[in-house]
Amino acid sequence: MSRHNHRAPTQMRPINITRHYTRHAEGSVLIEYGETKVICTASVIEKIPPFLKGAGQGWLTAEYGMLPRSTGERMQREAARGKQSGRTMEIQRLIGRALRSILDLKQIGERTIQIDCDVIQADGGTRTASITGAFVALHDAIEYLRTQQTIITNPIQDQVAAVSVGLLQGQPLLDLDYMEDSNCDTDLNIVMTGNLGLVEVQGTAEKVAFSRQELNTMLDMAQQGLQELFALQRKVLAAVAS
Amino acid sequence: MSRHNHRAPTQMRPINITRHYTRHAEGSVLIEYGETKVICTASVIEKIPPFLKGAGQGWLTAEYGMLPRSTGERMQREAARGKQSGRTMEIQRLIGRALRSILDLKQIGERTIQIDCDVIQADGGTRTASITGAFVALHDAIEYLRTQQTIITNPIQDQVAAVSVGLLQGQPLLDLDYMEDSNCDTDLNIVMTGNLGLVEVQGTAEKVAFSRQELNTMLDMAQQGLQELFALQRKVLAAVAS
Amino acid sequence: MSRHNHRAPTQMRPINITRHYTRHAEGSVLIEYGETKVICTASVIEKIPPFLKGAGQGWLTAEYGMLPRSTGERMQREAARGKQSGRTMEIQRLIGRALRSILDLKQIGERTIQIDCDVIQADGGTRTASITGAFVALHDAIEYLRTQQTIITNPIQDQVAAVSVGLLQGQPLLDLDYMEDSNCDTDLNIVMTGNLGLVEVQGTAEKVAFSRQELNTMLDMAQQGLQELFALQRKVLAAVAS
Amino acid sequence: MSRHNHRAPTQMRPINITRHYTRHAEGSVLIEYGETKVICTASVIEKIPPFLKGAGQGWLTAEYGMLPRSTGERMQREAARGKQSGRTMEIQRLIGRALRSILDLKQIGERTIQIDCDVIQADGGTRTASITGAFVALHDAIEYLRTQQTIITNPIQDQVAAVSVGLLQGQPLLDLDYMEDSNCDTDLNIVMTGNLGLVEVQGTAEKVAFSRQELNTMLDMAQQGLQELFALQRKVLAAVAS
Amino acid sequence: MSRHNHRAPTQMRPINITRHYTRHAEGSVLIEYGETKVICTASVIEKIPPFLKGAGQGWLTAEYGMLPRSTGERMQREAARGKQSGRTMEIQRLIGRALRSILDLKQIGERTIQIDCDVIQADGGTRTASITGAFVALHDAIEYLRTQQTIITNPIQDQVAAVSVGLLQGQPLLDLDYMEDSNCDTDLNIVMTGNLGLVEVQGTAEKVAFSRQELNTMLDMAQQGLQELFALQRKVLAAVAS
Amino acid sequence: MSRHNHRAPTQMRPINITRHYTRHAEGSVLIEYGETKVICTASVIEKIPPFLKGAGQGWLTAEYGMLPRSTGERMQREAARGKQSGRTMEIQRLIGRALRSILDLKQIGERTIQIDCDVIQADGGTRTASITGAFVALHDAIEYLRTQQTIITNPIQDQVAAVSVGLLQGQPLLDLDYMEDSNCDTDLNIVMTGNLGLVEVQGTAEKVAFSRQELNTMLDMAQQGLQELFALQRKVLAAVAS
Repeated sequence: MSRHNHRAPTQMRPINITRHYTRHAEGSVLIEYGETKVICTASVIEKIPPFLKGAGQGWLTAEYGMLPRSTGERMQREAARGKQSGRTMEIQRLIGRALRSILDLKQIGERTIQIDCDVIQADGGTRTASITGAFVALHDAIEYLRTQQTIITNPIQDQVAAVSVGLLQGQPLLDLDYMEDSNCDTDLNIVMTGNLGLVEVQGTAEKVAFSRQELNTMLDMAQQGLQELFALQRKVLAAVAS
Repeated sequence: MSRHNHRAPTQMRPINITRHYTRHAEGSVLIEYGETKVICTASVIEKIPPFLKGAGQGWLTAEYGMLPRSTGERMQREAARGKQSGRTMEIQRLIGRALRSILDLKQIGERTIQIDCDVIQADGGTRTASITGAFVALHDAIEYLRTQQTIITNPIQDQVAAVSVGLLQGQPLLDLDYMEDSNCDTDLNIVMTGNLGLVEVQGTAEKVAFSRQELNTMLDMAQQGLQELFALQRKVLAAVAS
Repeated sequence: MSRHNHRAPTQMRPINITRHYTRHAEGSVLIEYGETKVICTASVIEKIPPFLKGAGQGWLTAEYGMLPRSTGERMQREAARGKQSGRTMEIQRLIGRALRSILDLKQIGERTIQIDCDVIQADGGTRTASITGAFVALHDAIEYLRTQQTIITNPIQDQVAAVSVGLLQGQPLLDLDYMEDSNCDTDLNIVMTGNLGLVEVQGTAEKVAFSRQELNTMLDMAQQGLQELFALQRKVLAAVAS
Repeated sequence: MSRHNHRAPTQMRPINITRHYTRHAEGSVLIEYGETKVICTASVIEKIPPFLKGAGQGWLTAEYGMLPRSTGERMQREAARGKQSGRTMEIQRLIGRALRSILDLKQIGERTIQIDCDVIQADGGTRTASITGAFVALHDAIEYLRTQQTIITNPIQDQVAAVSVGLLQGQPLLDLDYMEDSNCDTDLNIVMTGNLGLVEVQGTAEKVAFSRQELNTMLDMAQQGLQELFALQRKVLAAVAS
Repeated sequence: MSRHNHRAPTQMRPINITRHYTRHAEGSVLIEYGETKVICTASVIEKIPPFLKGAGQGWLTAEYGMLPRSTGERMQREAARGKQSGRTMEIQRLIGRALRSILDLKQIGERTIQIDCDVIQADGGTRTASITGAFVALHDAIEYLRTQQTIITNPIQDQVAAVSVGLLQGQPLLDLDYMEDSNCDTDLNIVMTGNLGLVEVQGTAEKVAFSRQELNTMLDMAQQGLQELFALQRKVLAAVAS
Repeated sequence: MSRHNHRAPTQMRPINITRHYTRHAEGSVLIEYGETKVICTASVIEKIPPFLKGAGQGWLTAEYGMLPRSTGERMQREAARGKQSGRTMEIQRLIGRALRSILDLKQIGERTIQIDCDVIQADGGTRTASITGAFVALHDAIEYLRTQQTIITNPIQDQVAAVSVGLLQGQPLLDLDYMEDSNCDTDLNIVMTGNLGLVEVQGTAEKVAFSRQELNTMLDMAQQGLQELFALQRKVLAAVAS
């Protein structure tokens, strides 16, 4: 089966990560999964949420949004509508959990790392791109704190990244774009750490239930894509003067 | 390892399903997973959402709520607070997707089946109990429509149920209660159809990333629990005069 | 005139009170006025509202809700709608005032008793059932505090209960169910203390204004029903091992 | 017992009704109960609420508000806060029911009379003043419709007015001002029609429960005050060129 | 060109300012620009907003509202709708800035002057009338604080007032009423201090862009009107026993 | 006086306009005023707002937002907070009026052009950059409609652009950045059409009132800057294959 964009089933879209994309945030990244473009920022906020008062640790939380016309049809602006959709809340909770899984909250002190992922252009995979990009932004915010000697030990324990896999008429496809995502029978989002531990497995049968074997095939494919993403994160972070 | 409640790792809590629990809804069920108690109703509403106008099909949607003191500490009432939490939205979206996966929306005509899952008492697993109970309520609402001869063909294509599995210090445990859920490293919620197709796989590493092998062990354990749930659903629905 | 359910005009529906209905709340009661079923919980919260800071007393407040399909036609979920209706607010204010009328707030210390009344099934009289049931839940929460020796003196100064009376074509009827309530000309809700003091008298001419004499007849009838309710509360609370 | 303002117990405050107070509304009245001042308008709106579609009748609804500094201490503006308080909702529901009790909704055609009661200065009794004043505004709006020959028959079937009575240390007092209202043990609001039918009886024991006899004494006192209010309404409406 | 109300182009509507209009606020004014009537109150609140904690100064803020039937067609009540419109927010921000421009916030101590402008009747120019009237209310609230010897030095540094000018088919018109405002091509609102310094210039081409020369002509006309308003403010404030 | 960034008082920051910046919107522009970066999109929506039903014309409306970390300190996300700030509403109303001033709404047919201006990075002048950039996005959306032959005649009647001028210690400065804006005494935003007609003049004395002469000097300076902006718009739009 050929994909509408001539990609092989196991081929990811071109991935780009641009560090220091905007100037105010302690970490700021533009990540592109093909035509999907997300600005991920990590802000250091010298406060902790009330439920952590006195717990001697910090926190990381995430918010997610889409520009109204990041999509093919304009979506209503959530700020104007007065509330965030269930989808938005679900995604921002996912991003927060994914990033917290590799961050030692005790080591960051009584402060909050606030992740913001804002989709500038959407073409499928905005949540997975957000996680992969937010990791780099988090890294840069932590570097900032270490440069300031606000924190000494590196609280980042591993890399984290995410990718989607779908089943289209039984054929697994890596890193779905919007058209593929709309048509596929199953949609699986995988978040993994750099040492290939699973952090999140979210598989949904959109049309047809899937088998254990199909799940395993998709997980294999995801793992391969994630290894490419981890390599890219390392390469980007190794660049000195970026 | 013994569980705090003397259950075996692969042992589910006592499950009870009471049909016709309240009198107004077309389908109304009390489901108990041990001390977790959820009222699931299925209401037939002779309207469809705007995005389906003219599509010649029906819809099923779900809402979820918890009584403020269903939990150990009283939670703020969402109606008083003025909005539903991200967790609530995530769960009700999950319930809706799970039920739609086995319902032929074209066969129910231009109407909506509204599922409401309200937790009376919470002790872990409220979302999985909601799905398993809502299936029975859905069945009864569909029976009502068939008795009325509003619909002829049975639009229910399979059973659907859900269960959780957790990893506690490497040990997989089936059907977590609240205390177990709070302590475990990984939490996996599985929704399956009666013929053992996967509908939803939602695994989250709460503390420690999990391996592919652990995922597979947990999936095996979930499948076993789900088979018990399917058997119970069939038994309950076979009862004539309930 | 015979009532549609064969009750005599002065006859209440069967009333049941089940203590310790759910397990987490300090007081938890299921009350049934015929087919009307309300879960009433009393939660002890170690905080006081801001306006009582430093006043050296406690507080009692109440919230009320209906499950969306507790009614004949499904009602919109208030949490999803984002606000409570005027009716809900009116009822929860009424419940709070009724319970505070027999509670010595100075004796409970700087804490709040939070009453929650959630209607599982509605058939008229949900507000009166809520008050009568919440009294028993309050009693149990206070017993809990006394068992803990958190408070010593009993701050409950009297019983409190509530019942409705209606006028249907000039005929007074005790404890209206939904069908009667929808048709009657006047609706009167009475809250009384155990020593027959009036706490709330809320009479509304739904269709035809009523006379002073009719008001007095209805009050007589209410008083008789309330005496039955007080006897039942005493009987239920006398049960040792409930 | 002398009242702090030298009024006799059965003496109302000076009542003034100014018709045509503002220029845009079909009916517009300033009503003063002593220092309590409320602008009551009745607006004719050529729409009916959705639940009356096709019912061949009209509707009357009411809204109530207080200017933020109508009170001794400034209250938060409800529009800024984003919601109306329970007290506001309760009062506007009361005003609506009171006015509907004397209006034949079938005779006004498929339109809505919208009552707005806005408190300019508060000193107790704002809800009772609102009802008494809104009746005059309603009258003028109906006159407007009759002058326009939009409706022919007079749909107003009787007068309606309201007054409060309180019990202060056993002494009933008519038409409470704010200081009296804050101190009294019981607060009773009575709405009556011109022919002395009861429309609303809302009695609340703020501190001490009240007896049937006290209720009757208060009702007697209210009736006397209401007769003065009916006479004033008639006098004001008889004035031709006002 | 003659105006529909026979005013000369440079003629303001009759302006009236009534001090001590309501009794609770420290400053309370009714201001009338012809048929436009606004109640302006200034309340002294012994709190400062969080962003000024420790700044050793006070604050002044303003809110604005319209009674629903202050206008020709009834507007939805913002409190019922659950939010303030963009227009309301824009106007209340303008009023706040205008008043702060002549108030030395360091001299008022750590307290807030809360301005409330509520439109009782609208006929164009409600924002300009609000500013002119709020200045007098502010003056009276400051006088109250000085009488109480809470503050010693007068923190009011100058007068402030506002007026509108419009361009109708090239003809500038002073102090537009609603009908003129609806028809004119350009609408200019000017806020000035007593010594003729500009505080706000807000000109909007509603239909046709305007030239620099037209702007200057309108500013000349506004200045003339403002001098009348300053004279009236001084006259009203000079009245001893008002 | 030298500016902190070595600009001459009459010198604008480097201005860049990138057309076709994102792929879904009919018009999509990135505009940069120095370090201020705004994505402006123009979406064609085949609906008109209710108040224009049957008016035989189209509409243009605008929304504005800032990414939470577009600013030096992270701002709360308006979608999470549940409402737009007064500042946001004021700016989006301004953008809408500015664009409507040069668009013949009768010529665009019964559709809406929805402008979205989202600030990616803020350094002063976000509202002026939004207007200048939105004009180009509008142009491209109109071109799209003309290419589709949906509309024939060009409904754009002129260019429109905006710039700010400030007074810092009496010295006028063109195109303020954030640091200048925070310190200046007066802030003036000017919107002009290509033929130098004034569309909006919004001058605010932040600290010290300004004189008529200062206003004129600032307007002269603004006009010079706007001529540069018009030239740039024309140049960018003349580029064929952009």
